[in-house]
Amino acid sequence: MQVEIWSVGKENESFIDEGLKYYFQKTRPYNPVDLVLLQLPKKLATTDADKAKLLEEEMILKKLQPHHYLVLLDERGKLLTSPQWAQQFQQMMNMGTKTLVILIGGAFGVTDNIRRQARQVWSLSHLVFPHQLVRLMVAEQVYRAFSILNNSPYHHS
Amino acid sequence: MQVEIWSVGKENESFIDEGLKYYFQKTRPYNPVDLVLLQLPKKLATTDADKAKLLEEEMILKKLQPHHYLVLLDERGKLLTSPQWAQQFQQMMNMGTKTLVILIGGAFGVTDNIRRQARQVWSLSHLVFPHQLVRLMVAEQVYRAFSILNNSPYHHS
Repeated sequence: MQVEIWSVGKENESFIDEGLKYYFQKTRPYNPVDLVLLQLPKKLATTDADKAKLLEEEMILKKLQPHHYLVLLDERGKLLTSPQWAQQFQQMMNMGTKTLVILIGGAFGVTDNIRRQARQVWSLSHLVFPHQLVRLMVAEQVYRAFSILNNSPYHHS
Repeated sequence: MQVEIWSVGKENESFIDEGLKYYFQKTRPYNPVDLVLLQLPKKLATTDADKAKLLEEEMILKKLQPHHYLVLLDERGKLLTSPQWAQQFQQMMNMGTKTLVILIGGAFGVTDNIRRQARQVWSLSHLVFPHQLVRLMVAEQVYRAFSILNNSPYHHS
């Protein structure tokens, strides 16, 4: 199962990029994983939250394919544990999922339309983290989930 | 109020160090903040969880001063929001707290004795993150809390 972390917004600070490389390298012996940056063309940039969300919606829907299993990350989502992430990944693979897309919304969240497309909505924390750090946190959790599924000692609960 | 993030365990990967510098630099115009690494001497290193926790307890208690306000981070703690972190920091400052110590336990958690010393126990997430990444997450939340207290636009809720 291909795992893609989709994230709306800016390029990474160098320490985030380095961290993503670190976790992706550790994950790839188990499973393919990548970050997909979704960036609005500069001429469309806007500080109007509703407008930004609609433009982002269009960009996301254009990229979304029928074989994608979409998990939205959102503060209002379910707070799962790490073993539950692993369990969910296993179930997706059992269902024959080709590509899991984990979507990190933009700075203002996502539209209701995107929310309806999501098969599941998960939350990382009650705390708000910046999008770049969320990318890193998700990369680590994906690695942890596959470590759990492969009985690696990385996750000792 | 001096903010110290105490963390038991190894030196940081370079991307974590770079990230900590990034957030500490942003925080310092508002408030002093630092990472304090607590490392057992190599000759005491052990894979026995209970032994490690006791050795870590000794090390932590030796460092703990009466003017320290100890917040323990632990999976079983309270899940606060970012504005609640800010509120708590404000209350500590109002009480005249000199030094806030945010303690990230070792790989096996902390002893009950340390838990009793903590004035509060907070949780970041139901997910398990590695200690190094937790250091970075805490550094960002400390920056966010002071941004909120200083009405900076960094945190838009």
